[in-house]
Amino acid sequence: MTIPFEKLQSEFKRVLLSIGFTQEKAGNIASIFAENSRDGVYTHGLNRFPVFVEYVKEGLVQKDAGPELLNKFGALEQWHGNLGPGILNACFCMGRAIELAKANGIGCVAIKNTNHWMRAGAYGWQAAEAGMIGICFTNTIAHLPPWGGLDPRLGNNPLVIAIPREGRHVVLDMAISQYSVGKLNLYKTQKQQLPLPGGYDAEGNLSTDSEDILQSGRLLPVGFWKGSGLSLMLDLLATVLSQGSSTAKISQNEKESGVSQVFICIKPDSSVLTAQLIEEIISYTKTSRPVDEGGSISYPGENTLRTREKSLKEGVWVDEKIWEKVLGM
Amino acid sequence: MTIPFEKLQSEFKRVLLSIGFTQEKAGNIASIFAENSRDGVYTHGLNRFPVFVEYVKEGLVQKDAGPELLNKFGALEQWHGNLGPGILNACFCMGRAIELAKANGIGCVAIKNTNHWMRAGAYGWQAAEAGMIGICFTNTIAHLPPWGGLDPRLGNNPLVIAIPREGRHVVLDMAISQYSVGKLNLYKTQKQQLPLPGGYDAEGNLSTDSEDILQSGRLLPVGFWKGSGLSLMLDLLATVLSQGSSTAKISQNEKESGVSQVFICIKPDSSVLTAQLIEEIISYTKTSRPVDEGGSISYPGENTLRTREKSLKEGVWVDEKIWEKVLGM
Repeated sequence: MTIPFEKLQSEFKRVLLSIGFTQEKAGNIASIFAENSRDGVYTHGLNRFPVFVEYVKEGLVQKDAGPELLNKFGALEQWHGNLGPGILNACFCMGRAIELAKANGIGCVAIKNTNHWMRAGAYGWQAAEAGMIGICFTNTIAHLPPWGGLDPRLGNNPLVIAIPREGRHVVLDMAISQYSVGKLNLYKTQKQQLPLPGGYDAEGNLSTDSEDILQSGRLLPVGFWKGSGLSLMLDLLATVLSQGSSTAKISQNEKESGVSQVFICIKPDSSVLTAQLIEEIISYTKTSRPVDEGGSISYPGENTLRTREKSLKEGVWVDEKIWEKVLGM
Repeated sequence: MTIPFEKLQSEFKRVLLSIGFTQEKAGNIASIFAENSRDGVYTHGLNRFPVFVEYVKEGLVQKDAGPELLNKFGALEQWHGNLGPGILNACFCMGRAIELAKANGIGCVAIKNTNHWMRAGAYGWQAAEAGMIGICFTNTIAHLPPWGGLDPRLGNNPLVIAIPREGRHVVLDMAISQYSVGKLNLYKTQKQQLPLPGGYDAEGNLSTDSEDILQSGRLLPVGFWKGSGLSLMLDLLATVLSQGSSTAKISQNEKESGVSQVFICIKPDSSVLTAQLIEEIISYTKTSRPVDEGGSISYPGENTLRTREKSLKEGVWVDEKIWEKVLGM
């Protein structure tokens, strides 16, 4: 079923107020959750909202806590998240990175002891809306085995790169596993095979069977050994720059809390030439003949915008059961 | 056969002097070419040296040209490469990024109209040697089809991330294709199947046959649609930040010249804690049980160091024919 965007937003806000968030914080968190569903990232919109509420009630997320400056050197800052709501901490840090880039051309903000920021891409869109190039990433609990290994030791550390472009920003939001656990579960429920190998089965063969992959726990990183290396580097960067918890430390607890994140902004030339260069790159890419008849080539963020427009026109798709649950909260 | 590192270096220098490079420039370029082979990246060491010399003779690489500052705003700089030797321009730009990071915590240098920098990782090692976190990337001529497309429109834009670590830096040097053209040719010559799918055959099926893949030209980007998106983003970043040529523009000529590159440095806390955090992450990753009995998990850069030590002890492996060619130059 579909729900008007504003209704989603106001229901989230109502629940957040009921568990003690201030008007302002409830409004901001509600907006991001609603926007994530609006943009088609249901796993980090409505679907994750009840988990967030539970984490707040359990004290894993400290509802009144906010970020605190620990160190500053030039255009580089280290913040302490005080286990506050990940969404608010992340919005704040990207905001700081934007200010630093305005003043210095480039700025970098690292935060430790923060919480899950839900959709990584949200903060890329935030930077792009401010006319900035945005790069951000987080570490997570261990989900993926390193290349050559059986046991999960790497986070699914998403990497976001955003380029501002009039009204149609280009935003890459890329987790390290080829398919997310959420996506694998979806294929499992629908008893469908994955279009491409997404991990290994119990015998160590590449598999398109999501059930086999979930059972072995050997999800495939993008590009095999390359994604494995990239995930490790993102954890190293986030941990070293924030002086916070690594995937190793975070994975000591069953529930993910106290993660480390990095936000980098760069100020692009706001010239006509910049806009022309971006159009040149995108239109050149789109001239590749499609593999499937009638197919087309998309740039990162293009499908997000399409979903956003549809959601705003026809309502945001919601999982009925989860929606009922939120209404009853 | 193997050759002492110093011999490789001095032969390269001799050839470069003979085509008119100054003592200093010849020495620096020769060192990087020799180091690339020493570290096992033969495709961008000895094997590529004759091509470089040819490009200099053809004027695609301007041997006397050097970088020129175009714009500076805070910790962000734009340089013009004047089609000078890519290796020298890249060393210079990473050097500038190191200085900017020393002064501002973070620094970013973009350069346009430069040339192939050979091994991308070389500049990551340079940053790490200076105690800096280094990130760099370049665009290239179109080698890969975008996801959903048949014709190459994306560069194989390598991404480098380097973290300094006492004596054993962690350096990821990752091109976007799962296997490089050089690697595919190697498997083809040896009539061996790739260990994992590396592209598509003429019928559009995933294939481990390097000959089929080279024929179709449909090399696989890491992580399928994800690597396709990442390659596009790196081209956008390099082009926008340098205001230089994109893959679209570079691909108008048959030979790659006038590329755009970005160098970012960040100053890490040089505390004992930083070193501990890095060790914690690497040792945790290595506790994953190996897939193959007796196997082990490597971090990015670990094998490079192993090859380097072996090369320095036993001599650098060279392709005899190419070595003979260089001796005769």
